[in-house]
Amino acid sequence: MAESNTKPKFSIILFSGTADKFLPLGVLSDAAAAMGYEVGIFITGFALLGFTKEKHTLPFSFEFKDMAPMLEQGMKATNTKGWYEMIKEAKEIGDVKVHACSLTAAMFNLKKEDFDPIVDDVVGAASFLQLSEGGQVIFI
Amino acid sequence: MAESNTKPKFSIILFSGTADKFLPLGVLSDAAAAMGYEVGIFITGFALLGFTKEKHTLPFSFEFKDMAPMLEQGMKATNTKGWYEMIKEAKEIGDVKVHACSLTAAMFNLKKEDFDPIVDDVVGAASFLQLSEGGQVIFI
Amino acid sequence: MAESNTKPKFSIILFSGTADKFLPLGVLSDAAAAMGYEVGIFITGFALLGFTKEKHTLPFSFEFKDMAPMLEQGMKATNTKGWYEMIKEAKEIGDVKVHACSLTAAMFNLKKEDFDPIVDDVVGAASFLQLSEGGQVIFI
Repeated sequence: MAESNTKPKFSIILFSGTADKFLPLGVLSDAAAAMGYEVGIFITGFALLGFTKEKHTLPFSFEFKDMAPMLEQGMKATNTKGWYEMIKEAKEIGDVKVHACSLTAAMFNLKKEDFDPIVDDVVGAASFLQLSEGGQVIFI
Repeated sequence: MAESNTKPKFSIILFSGTADKFLPLGVLSDAAAAMGYEVGIFITGFALLGFTKEKHTLPFSFEFKDMAPMLEQGMKATNTKGWYEMIKEAKEIGDVKVHACSLTAAMFNLKKEDFDPIVDDVVGAASFLQLSEGGQVIFI
Repeated sequence: MAESNTKPKFSIILFSGTADKFLPLGVLSDAAAAMGYEVGIFITGFALLGFTKEKHTLPFSFEFKDMAPMLEQGMKATNTKGWYEMIKEAKEIGDVKVHACSLTAAMFNLKKEDFDPIVDDVVGAASFLQLSEGGQVIFI
């Protein structure tokens, strides 16, 4: 696609592995994809464990864990999809890639085949920085 | 203002609702406003509860809660204003808007009139991304 | 250096003082420096205590503290350097500056001479924003 060169980029580094942080990941990825951004998600740190085939229960932010049920209820009441569905939808409607951090993967002894198919590749931080060059980047 | 088109943009997504994170929100907003940036603040997640008319006591970061008194004392000793006063000042001296996330507001059953007047409007993530396009954006 | 004007900038605001957040600080600084970015690190909040001559033991993220030993083991198994060595290396191979936040320093009663030599100067948030203008900036 010739036009892809002119798409603005929106990149997200997801490091914090607490469950609550996956909601803004999903919402922002979905919104940016719908707006035509090239979206790059770099999963690293404990957040990597949210993207493995083997399911891990990630802890909710300790300070707000008492409010987790209220948040869940709010998501149901507003028909808000879970983060995984949001990312999948974002990948269908737009240009969204999920990159797993190769260093953290090595630390956790995880290989490409250990990740959910939603993960596109396993790359280093330098590769991710190169992909996100010239665009907006946030660290969650 | 014709010149507003050329102002650099500095946008802040405030998601973490712990009390300590409101200090960098205030300091960075105030500094960016004073420097002539167009500042956009998108409040979402539990941070939304810091901007309602009904006052909520937000928890301090658990790991550093023992140091909260020292920080408070340091703020007094250095005559540092609280975050709310900083945002108000930033709005007076510069171009600063506070946008509440419509999705989180719906989840918490909050309407425009439930927010403190410091909040300018209630918008979706896509609208916020559009407002911040082309500028720097951080996620707190 | 005439060419320094054309280097892309990558700036990091390190506020969260939990020990786990220093790893992405090191990795991203090192990667960005190796790629030729002008890297600016603004240390503020409790993270300042990681850069003083007097050593402070910073707490690990509470939610993941049980996984800290696994992370440490992973770092050893992958021969990953600690964050301090990464920043030092980044400063040797590239254009990396560490700026301590003057406001937080005043709150903690810290002076330039109280910081580790890895810290280049003590500046305000406005100065940091000016240095990072036009580049990418993340908040950790």
